[in-house]
Amino acid sequence: MAYEALREAVWRANLDLVESGLVVLTWGNASAVDRENGVVAIKPSGVAYEEMRPEQMVVVSLEDGAAVDGELRPSSDTPTHLHLYREFPGIGAVVHTHSRHAVSWAQAERDLPCFGTTHADHFHGPVPVTRRMRPEEIRDAYEHNTGVVIVETFRSRGIEPADVPAVLVAGHGPFAWGGSAREAVENGIVLEAVAGMALNTLTIKRDAAPIDRELLDKHFMRKHGKDAYYGQESLAP
Amino acid sequence: MAYEALREAVWRANLDLVESGLVVLTWGNASAVDRENGVVAIKPSGVAYEEMRPEQMVVVSLEDGAAVDGELRPSSDTPTHLHLYREFPGIGAVVHTHSRHAVSWAQAERDLPCFGTTHADHFHGPVPVTRRMRPEEIRDAYEHNTGVVIVETFRSRGIEPADVPAVLVAGHGPFAWGGSAREAVENGIVLEAVAGMALNTLTIKRDAAPIDRELLDKHFMRKHGKDAYYGQESLAP
Amino acid sequence: MAYEALREAVWRANLDLVESGLVVLTWGNASAVDRENGVVAIKPSGVAYEEMRPEQMVVVSLEDGAAVDGELRPSSDTPTHLHLYREFPGIGAVVHTHSRHAVSWAQAERDLPCFGTTHADHFHGPVPVTRRMRPEEIRDAYEHNTGVVIVETFRSRGIEPADVPAVLVAGHGPFAWGGSAREAVENGIVLEAVAGMALNTLTIKRDAAPIDRELLDKHFMRKHGKDAYYGQESLAP
Amino acid sequence: MAYEALREAVWRANLDLVESGLVVLTWGNASAVDRENGVVAIKPSGVAYEEMRPEQMVVVSLEDGAAVDGELRPSSDTPTHLHLYREFPGIGAVVHTHSRHAVSWAQAERDLPCFGTTHADHFHGPVPVTRRMRPEEIRDAYEHNTGVVIVETFRSRGIEPADVPAVLVAGHGPFAWGGSAREAVENGIVLEAVAGMALNTLTIKRDAAPIDRELLDKHFMRKHGKDAYYGQESLAP
Repeated sequence: MAYEALREAVWRANLDLVESGLVVLTWGNASAVDRENGVVAIKPSGVAYEEMRPEQMVVVSLEDGAAVDGELRPSSDTPTHLHLYREFPGIGAVVHTHSRHAVSWAQAERDLPCFGTTHADHFHGPVPVTRRMRPEEIRDAYEHNTGVVIVETFRSRGIEPADVPAVLVAGHGPFAWGGSAREAVENGIVLEAVAGMALNTLTIKRDAAPIDRELLDKHFMRKHGKDAYYGQESLAP
Repeated sequence: MAYEALREAVWRANLDLVESGLVVLTWGNASAVDRENGVVAIKPSGVAYEEMRPEQMVVVSLEDGAAVDGELRPSSDTPTHLHLYREFPGIGAVVHTHSRHAVSWAQAERDLPCFGTTHADHFHGPVPVTRRMRPEEIRDAYEHNTGVVIVETFRSRGIEPADVPAVLVAGHGPFAWGGSAREAVENGIVLEAVAGMALNTLTIKRDAAPIDRELLDKHFMRKHGKDAYYGQESLAP
Repeated sequence: MAYEALREAVWRANLDLVESGLVVLTWGNASAVDRENGVVAIKPSGVAYEEMRPEQMVVVSLEDGAAVDGELRPSSDTPTHLHLYREFPGIGAVVHTHSRHAVSWAQAERDLPCFGTTHADHFHGPVPVTRRMRPEEIRDAYEHNTGVVIVETFRSRGIEPADVPAVLVAGHGPFAWGGSAREAVENGIVLEAVAGMALNTLTIKRDAAPIDRELLDKHFMRKHGKDAYYGQESLAP
Repeated sequence: MAYEALREAVWRANLDLVESGLVVLTWGNASAVDRENGVVAIKPSGVAYEEMRPEQMVVVSLEDGAAVDGELRPSSDTPTHLHLYREFPGIGAVVHTHSRHAVSWAQAERDLPCFGTTHADHFHGPVPVTRRMRPEEIRDAYEHNTGVVIVETFRSRGIEPADVPAVLVAGHGPFAWGGSAREAVENGIVLEAVAGMALNTLTIKRDAAPIDRELLDKHFMRKHGKDAYYGQESLAP
C-alpha cells in the first residue's frame, strides 16, 4: 500500500484516541502530513473503530484535498485539518475529539486557564477558545472556515502553535496537534486531563488564579526546547 | 422462535445499553416494533442482564399490549413504549435508562440546552423535559400516562420526534428512540454524553448560551436528511 | 465449617461491594444475621479482599458480640452492625462503605432528598443524615454509639427501617440494610447511584425540588409490598 | 543487581500508582530510601510504565543525589524526594502524582479540609497546601526548592509529617509519604479519594464544616499508634 508508514501512524493515532477514552462512538479523527509528498492521511468518515484497518486511511492532497489514494470518503473534518497544516508549517499531525471536559470548556466559550504545572508542562499559556463562527462562515465551506477561525485566533492573539498545541473551537470542541501523530494524541490526552482539573479547580475556588509566569516558563521549558532536562537524553526531542 | 429477528435486535439493544455503561442494576429497557405484524418486542421485567437470552424477549400487541408470545412478564414500562409507538409512527425502537447525567437533568426539571455540536449532531434543538404528572395520572395507568405526557410535550411545543429523538421525563429519566434498535441505543448514549457535558458547561459558566441556529442546523443536517455528507455513501441512512 | 451458608453469603456480599466499585482499599464491610441461632457473620478487620475466603468471616454473638467462631478479629465496625440488628428486628443484613457520593452527602450533613424515581424505587423518602456524635459518645464505645445515633435518627423522625433501608452517618458515611445480604448490597449500590445523581441535580439547579408524594408512593409500592408489580411473579419478594 | 529489594519495592510502587488510576501518561514517580546505606531508589525520568523493569530504578546518594547505580537519568523530581528524606527522618518512601482531584485542590490553593472519617483514618488534620514559590526559588534549583517549601509548610504550621503524610504543592500537585513504599502509595490513593469527596461535599454545601476534634482523633488513633485496634493484631504496624 502507498504511504504505508503514514497510514499506519494515522491508524495507530486514531486507535490511541479511543484507548485513551477520548472518543465516544465515532466522534474523533486523527491525521498526519507528509510534507515532502504534499499529502495528508486521515481517518475515513463514520467508520467504526473496531473494524478500521490501516489501509482504509484516506490519502488526500495537502494543497486542495483532492483524493490521492484510498477508496473511502475522508473524515468530514478534513478541510479543517488541511487548513491547519497549510497555515501552521511546523506541525506534523492533528487530532480532533469530542472529549468531555475539553468540550465543556469549548461550550462555555472560556479560554482554559493555566492553573497548574500539569498544564504548563504541555501548553505554554491558556488554551484559547475561538470566537463564534458567523452565519456565512457556517453556511459555506464550514469545515474549512473552522480552520480559518482557529488560525485567526492564534494570529490575532500572537500565540505560536508550537507553544500552545491545542485550541477550543467555540460551541464545538478541541483540536490538538504536534510534531508527530503520537505527540498530537498526547496533547489531546493532556488537554482533556487539564480541562477536567481546571473545572474541578473552579468548583473548589470560583476565582482561582493562574500560576505565575516564572512557574509556567519553568515547566514548559523543562520539557521543550534546547534546555529541556526531562526524560532520557537519548529520548529527548 | 417467533419474531426471531425482532427479538434478537431487542436483546442486542438491551445488552448494548449495559455495555455502554448506561445501566445500573436492571434499570433500563429497550424495545422495537414490527409495524407490519402489529407487535412490539420488549425486555422482560426485572431479569438480570447476564442471564438474558433473545427468546426471553416478550412479544406484545402494539394495539393493546396483550401477550402475543413469551412466557415472562414484559417490562413494567411497556405501556409507555406502546404509547410512543402508536403516537410517533416514524419510530422503530425505544430505549429507557436511568443513566446518571440524563436523570440529573430530568430531576432538575430543566430542558437540556444545545450547548454544542455534539448535541446538534443528534438532536435538532434542546431535549425537552416534561411537566410533572398529576396525582390522578400517577394513580391509574401510570406507565401509559408517562407516554401521554411525553407526547403532549412534543405536540404542545411543536417538536418533531424525528428531530429530537429523546425526552426527559420530569423526576424520572430519559427515553430515547430511533428508526432502528441500534439508532435508539445510539441516541441514548449521545443523550447521556451531552447531558454530562452540559452539566460541566454550567459549572464553568453558569449562564452559558446555546449555540447559534445556523450551527445547530448545519450539524444536524450534516448527518440527517437528503443533503447529509457525514459517513460513507453506502452507509448513509 | 459452621454457619457455612451465612458465611458464604457474607463473603459474597463483601466481594459484591468491591465489584460494584463501592470500596476503595479495604473500606467497607458486610454482615448478615442468623436470628434463629443468635449469631452474626461479618468481615474480618483490615483483610485484603483478593485473599478473603468464606471461612474467614467471623461469627459473633448477636447479643453481646462475643466470639463464636473464627480466628480473626471481626471488623472494627461490628458493634454498629450488632446494634442495628438488635433494634431493627426486620433486617437480615447490613453493609457499610465509604462510597464516594454517599460519603459526600454524609460529610455535607444533608439528608439525601428524593429527587426522582430512581431513589423512590428503593427508598420511601429522603435518606436521613444523623446528628453529630457528642464527645462522650465518641470517646467510649464509639462504634456502638454509631449504631445508637442511627437508631435515634429513625425513631425520632418516625422513619421505618424497611421504608428507608439506609442512613448517612454525619461526617462518616453510609450504612444500608435489607432482608438478605444481596438486598443490603443492592441498597448500598442504589444509595451511591442516587447520591451521585442528586449531587448533579443540585449542580444544574441549586433549588431543585423533591418529587411529589404521589410519585414517591407509586414507585416505592411498584416494587415493595403486596401490590408490587415489578419483576417476575416467581421472583417477587 | 545491587539494592535489589529496594529497587523491587520502588518499581512495584510505581506500577501500583498506575494500577490505582492515579497516573496519566508518565506523570508520577515513587521512591524509597535505604537509610543504612544512605541511598534512594527512584523511577527513571520519562520512561513508559509498561516497559519499566525493576533494574531500571535509579539509585542515588541520599546526601547529594550523586548517581550510585543505574544507567538512566533519575526522575527530574529527585531533588524534591531527597530533601524530604533528609528533613523528615521518619519516612521511608515518597510518591508524587498528578492525580486529578488532589491536583485540583493544589491548583485552588486551599488546604484539604478534614470533612470526614475517611480522611481522618489516614490524615490527622487538613492536608496543607504550600505557599506559591518565589521567582528566585523557581529559577534555580527548582525541584530542590519544591522540597524546601514543603518542609517549611510543615515546620511553620507545626504539623508532624507522620500525622499528615501528604502535602499539596500550590499550582502543582500532591506528594505523599509513609514508612514503606506500600504505605506511601496507600496515602496517595487515600489523598486522591478524599480530595474527590471533599470537592463533592463543597458542591452539596458550600460552607461544609470539618469534623469535630474528638472524631478526628478517634479515627486517626484507631489506626495509628499504640492503642490502634483496626486490622489484625499480627498485621498491626
